[in-house]
Amino acid sequence: MNISTNEISEIMNWISSYGLLETGGITRLLYSQEWMDVQNGLKEKFESIGMKANFDEIGNLIGHLSGSENSEETIATGSHIDTVVNGGKLDGQLGIFGGFLAVKHLLETYGQPKKNIEIISMAEEEGSRFPYVFWGSKNLLGLANKEDVLNITDQDGIKFVDAMHKHGFDFKSDNKSSLSHVKAFVELHIEQGNALEMEEKSVGIITDIVGQRRYNITLKGEANHAGTTLMEYRKDVIQVFANIVTESINKAKEKGNPLVLTFGKINVKPNTVNVVPGFAEFTMDCRHTDGSFLKEFTTEIEEDMKRIAKDANVEIEIDRWMDEEPVPMDKNVISMIEEACKAKGLNYKLMHSGAGHDSQIIAPHIKTGMIFVPSVKGISHNPKEFTELEDLKQGIEALAAAIYKLAY
Amino acid sequence: MNISTNEISEIMNWISSYGLLETGGITRLLYSQEWMDVQNGLKEKFESIGMKANFDEIGNLIGHLSGSENSEETIATGSHIDTVVNGGKLDGQLGIFGGFLAVKHLLETYGQPKKNIEIISMAEEEGSRFPYVFWGSKNLLGLANKEDVLNITDQDGIKFVDAMHKHGFDFKSDNKSSLSHVKAFVELHIEQGNALEMEEKSVGIITDIVGQRRYNITLKGEANHAGTTLMEYRKDVIQVFANIVTESINKAKEKGNPLVLTFGKINVKPNTVNVVPGFAEFTMDCRHTDGSFLKEFTTEIEEDMKRIAKDANVEIEIDRWMDEEPVPMDKNVISMIEEACKAKGLNYKLMHSGAGHDSQIIAPHIKTGMIFVPSVKGISHNPKEFTELEDLKQGIEALAAAIYKLAY
Repeated sequence: MNISTNEISEIMNWISSYGLLETGGITRLLYSQEWMDVQNGLKEKFESIGMKANFDEIGNLIGHLSGSENSEETIATGSHIDTVVNGGKLDGQLGIFGGFLAVKHLLETYGQPKKNIEIISMAEEEGSRFPYVFWGSKNLLGLANKEDVLNITDQDGIKFVDAMHKHGFDFKSDNKSSLSHVKAFVELHIEQGNALEMEEKSVGIITDIVGQRRYNITLKGEANHAGTTLMEYRKDVIQVFANIVTESINKAKEKGNPLVLTFGKINVKPNTVNVVPGFAEFTMDCRHTDGSFLKEFTTEIEEDMKRIAKDANVEIEIDRWMDEEPVPMDKNVISMIEEACKAKGLNYKLMHSGAGHDSQIIAPHIKTGMIFVPSVKGISHNPKEFTELEDLKQGIEALAAAIYKLAY
Repeated sequence: MNISTNEISEIMNWISSYGLLETGGITRLLYSQEWMDVQNGLKEKFESIGMKANFDEIGNLIGHLSGSENSEETIATGSHIDTVVNGGKLDGQLGIFGGFLAVKHLLETYGQPKKNIEIISMAEEEGSRFPYVFWGSKNLLGLANKEDVLNITDQDGIKFVDAMHKHGFDFKSDNKSSLSHVKAFVELHIEQGNALEMEEKSVGIITDIVGQRRYNITLKGEANHAGTTLMEYRKDVIQVFANIVTESINKAKEKGNPLVLTFGKINVKPNTVNVVPGFAEFTMDCRHTDGSFLKEFTTEIEEDMKRIAKDANVEIEIDRWMDEEPVPMDKNVISMIEEACKAKGLNYKLMHSGAGHDSQIIAPHIKTGMIFVPSVKGISHNPKEFTELEDLKQGIEALAAAIYKLAY
């Protein structure tokens, strides 16, 4: 089996033509015309290699290849077909066109598999058009709530329901999983970080998807004249913010990987050169693969924040509005992918995912694994999103080898 | 001599009626109708106690009382008549109505002074209507530049020059000082900080007005995914900002008063919860009464900032756009005010001013002193600006005692 970089390049350019922008990026939002067109294009593509391809009720596209054992047992791969606004050519769709190339070459090299193989082009993951994420994978598992999308609209005021109906799709008629026959799911995706690049690896085998806690924190001090208010009489929120960030990031660095801690947003009032700021709101985003570690660490940081604020006579409100548990990948699938990589002589490493993926929805219900390829400079959600063709090739080969082990 | 709190209250309410808002605050911008009305009102008020009152070319109002010695030697007091938008009832005008009450009671108690006395209602200090400050005092000394205001406009697009002409005023015809006959100037003002309140003092005698250095600082790092970018691969500008603020404020506190250091403004990009910020711009405002100390301290902080940024692989640009030297008050005037306070049994302390005042323009040319009264909670530039009547009384008595020593 030899997947050529030309072939990869060709199919990537073909799929990227749906929603391609002058920037070189892609905008392909859920239930848009580009989205419908690419799904129809993929249906034909799947059928061209002898798969049966059908949409489910909400618009997930499932390419099905029957195995020789005539059983229900199915091995699945795939990812999401939607993009962010002005996104790149890999986030999401790599898992679909890469899965297609893997299956095509397995068929050409080894013929019909024993077990069924499915490639799933999931309707939506990004939440870029409507304020809802994982619409594709959640529907596959019967986990999506009709009520959550019934009244949401996109930024042009178009209702979710109307956009869905426009292409002949509708809510799932039951809450049952459409994947009950799937014995294992493997998703190929770009890293969206730079760990593989920095360690000069071509393939990452994911052990866990991180848990996340996100916070909004509000500080209320006292806005005061920057010249006439002596340091000891200030209730300076920016000093409290700075102490919190400095102390917390130092602690996070001591703990080491895979812990990441980010203070991404800060707004202060009155935000002017000659007034001590009296009000600030900022965010904190903390992630780790170990749920109890994440809880323990953030609880400690919460206590630190309260202490620092109190010492500076500043009021603090801490609102933890996101608390997602980490999701481990299946141990057997992990070692199976690792064995495949070893056998193929691929340049791989075991790693965690710091971002969320469809696999985190699927993994609690089906044995799931993920394969990463490097993102050059860690850039993603951007037309500059890029992976060397040689690395894409290794990623697709790892996926093919994994599917071979599972389905043949 | 006994100045009653009723009398203070009465004249304060009278002068505050010019530009009074429903908020209880005052908006009285340079060359507005309210401004012209209050200047005309003050002219009559000055004349009512036997002073000659006249405008200079640009609209400063000077009330003149001739002394018995028939010399040119004059003792002056006063402050600015303009306010910020929605300002309080004391900032600026206290020095005018307080000066008026002091002179009125001196006349009633001791009759004609030996030296001439002048009360100056200065046209402008705040820079609230046009982007120019100290228009009043700078013109008194022949220091204002016509070119600096020739093309400036207010936020409604009205030209400075047109606003000035509207009330019959025009540029000064020469660059000579109108205060060459003035032997000493004493300004009464509110503190606009809370040092007097915290130390339970009624009167502050100013030794120095602080020097100021103001900076814009820009940090360029790299915006990265908050989940997928490990801590060691980040170029996190918010971490650099936090380290700079923490380290600098700790250093400033170690140095102690009168050093003040403020990081009042911070804007980051992209400013969102799940992205490590890649760009930040912030301000630093540093003040001290000792010019060489101020220079040495800020130079050290500049070096610290560069080091912290470099250690984090973040680019830094430091722009020092304001560098004002401290202005000492005249030693003889200071001790003269102190003797007067002692003799009157007033509850005073010696202190510096952390804010700028007309006196800093005047002091390099004329022997100058300043008297502060407390600002409750340090609030200023706000309708809540407040000083207890008893403290106003002590401040006006200190001013009267000083003028008596100088002019009688």
